[in-house]
Amino acid sequence: MSEFDLIARHFWRPTQGQSGVLLGNGDDCALLAPAPGMALAVSCDMLVAGRHFLPDVDPQALGHKALAVNLSDLAAMGARPLACTLALALPSVPDEAWLAGLARGLLALADAHGCALVGGDTTAGPLNLCLTVLGEVPPAHASRRSAAQPGDDVWVSGALGEARLGLALLRGELDLQGPGTEAAREHLLRPQPRVALGLALRGLVHAAVDVSDGLLADLGHILAAAGVAAQVDVDALLTHAVPPAVRALPPATALTYALAGGDDYELVFTADPAQREAVLAAARRAGTPVARIGRIVPGAPAAHPLADGAGRVQLVDGGGAPYTLPAGVRLAGFDHFATIEP
Amino acid sequence: MSEFDLIARHFWRPTQGQSGVLLGNGDDCALLAPAPGMALAVSCDMLVAGRHFLPDVDPQALGHKALAVNLSDLAAMGARPLACTLALALPSVPDEAWLAGLARGLLALADAHGCALVGGDTTAGPLNLCLTVLGEVPPAHASRRSAAQPGDDVWVSGALGEARLGLALLRGELDLQGPGTEAAREHLLRPQPRVALGLALRGLVHAAVDVSDGLLADLGHILAAAGVAAQVDVDALLTHAVPPAVRALPPATALTYALAGGDDYELVFTADPAQREAVLAAARRAGTPVARIGRIVPGAPAAHPLADGAGRVQLVDGGGAPYTLPAGVRLAGFDHFATIEP
Repeated sequence: MSEFDLIARHFWRPTQGQSGVLLGNGDDCALLAPAPGMALAVSCDMLVAGRHFLPDVDPQALGHKALAVNLSDLAAMGARPLACTLALALPSVPDEAWLAGLARGLLALADAHGCALVGGDTTAGPLNLCLTVLGEVPPAHASRRSAAQPGDDVWVSGALGEARLGLALLRGELDLQGPGTEAAREHLLRPQPRVALGLALRGLVHAAVDVSDGLLADLGHILAAAGVAAQVDVDALLTHAVPPAVRALPPATALTYALAGGDDYELVFTADPAQREAVLAAARRAGTPVARIGRIVPGAPAAHPLADGAGRVQLVDGGGAPYTLPAGVRLAGFDHFATIEP
Repeated sequence: MSEFDLIARHFWRPTQGQSGVLLGNGDDCALLAPAPGMALAVSCDMLVAGRHFLPDVDPQALGHKALAVNLSDLAAMGARPLACTLALALPSVPDEAWLAGLARGLLALADAHGCALVGGDTTAGPLNLCLTVLGEVPPAHASRRSAAQPGDDVWVSGALGEARLGLALLRGELDLQGPGTEAAREHLLRPQPRVALGLALRGLVHAAVDVSDGLLADLGHILAAAGVAAQVDVDALLTHAVPPAVRALPPATALTYALAGGDDYELVFTADPAQREAVLAAARRAGTPVARIGRIVPGAPAAHPLADGAGRVQLVDGGGAPYTLPAGVRLAGFDHFATIEP
């Protein structure tokens, strides 16, 4: 079977009638028509076997996750998904069952978000997936990292550290059973991008980022881009934004996972305290839990927006006093040049 | 040096003020603003070491080519480049000099076409480049493969078979010197996407495709998508669309290169014969040679647009009689699951 046949059989579906898509797969380019006045948001992520997923991962979970991590970037911008492209390098003899699973996982999530797969590329090579997503957002409502302001609340969605727990379980670093362990594996393998929350928060938030590399590292990107700092209330974080299965771990492990665990794909965002009720109402509408975990304070001038800003975070306790981390907490951000070993 | 530092140092430049770019690198998404009424054209290509380029390729040439093959897809659609994203998997210890060369080659071509690098991703992994390009085109002027009509002329730009000659020289399959050999190497390593021609031809052409896999294979995509067939005049092709250095090869080799050589990134397009003078004038404005090499005739109903349509091409001589190919001509389209061996 040729590469064209493989793509056609598993990945192609009609895109006629899908919102914003004039021409889908099968030409030199796809053609999109964003609604008038909308900006087009673009993001791409590349996933490599042994780095971003374990080589024996369920292909359906991989298809889901490859798209989810990209939709998460749209969510952080407040953008509505329109379309995506998939470039895929596959071993020389493509395993059709594997490819079919990948397509099922990816397309199911794409359908759930109205995101049309409009093109891509397939080639032979070491396994590699590159997804590019396109969404639309009113330019004035796009939540830029640089927009955080001193006095803002810092909020986070969902369950931090849970995906890191899932990774520890898959790697066999921890041998746990019971409530929350299945949810942790699911969070790692099939993260749910916070698209609905991102849309509900349009106009209510200043800055937002998605948590792919760990809370401190990603909040740090906001802080570096905006030229501010933050106080994060560790007690509030552990109580309201970390699931019980992570809280039940030894303190150094729980804090490492909550502060530096990657792959959660939650949103961290900042908003004026006058918006507290509105933020909570928006989160309820989106069906996504959120927790207020700190506030933005003045900081050093803006640095390169991808500069390490984790050092701009001051950890405090519920009373506002500096929080003393127990020995053994490891806070380096997830580094994509470090290998994930199974 | 971290991945962020590497990206920042070599690939980042201000995008403020670039046409259509609201927000460039350094946030969760880039934000683009296509001009009102324009459709957004999207295409992506993945390049893998050992498949699409030789492992010891000059990184500056590789950066050029990775973008060029994508701009070529915009050209085939009649779209003006706006922006691109680059996802890059690099060996665990990135070679900074190599990366700097890659950036120089890519950014020089991006600048030449007003195409802002607005985002991307970097990760450790086997060398892989995935470029996604975004352009704008009036939807009514986008040249779709399915729009070819019986009676249309078939045109091709530039120099077919030249990149294949370049590959033969690099591989050492041929040992030639003299006029045209340097141009052939350049055509392979630094193809010039026919963006200016694509823009000049807006409104004049019916269908267009770029020649990445070989003339027969790519013209075949038009024919399959439109449900038509074509007669290609081999004498006209050799005389007007094949460079002298290819024409001078043994006939079987010259025909193989001209009909099935990949990587030329020329445009093949169809247009009403009433547009002949207008097409020639547009090509002059764009500074790109074009040649009329055949015509569209009725054919079997439309098939899957990526179906093999090379069998819909009838080769004829200058007098319209069937053309008998000499023994040894190999006409299979370039297959990305076949390895390029140096």
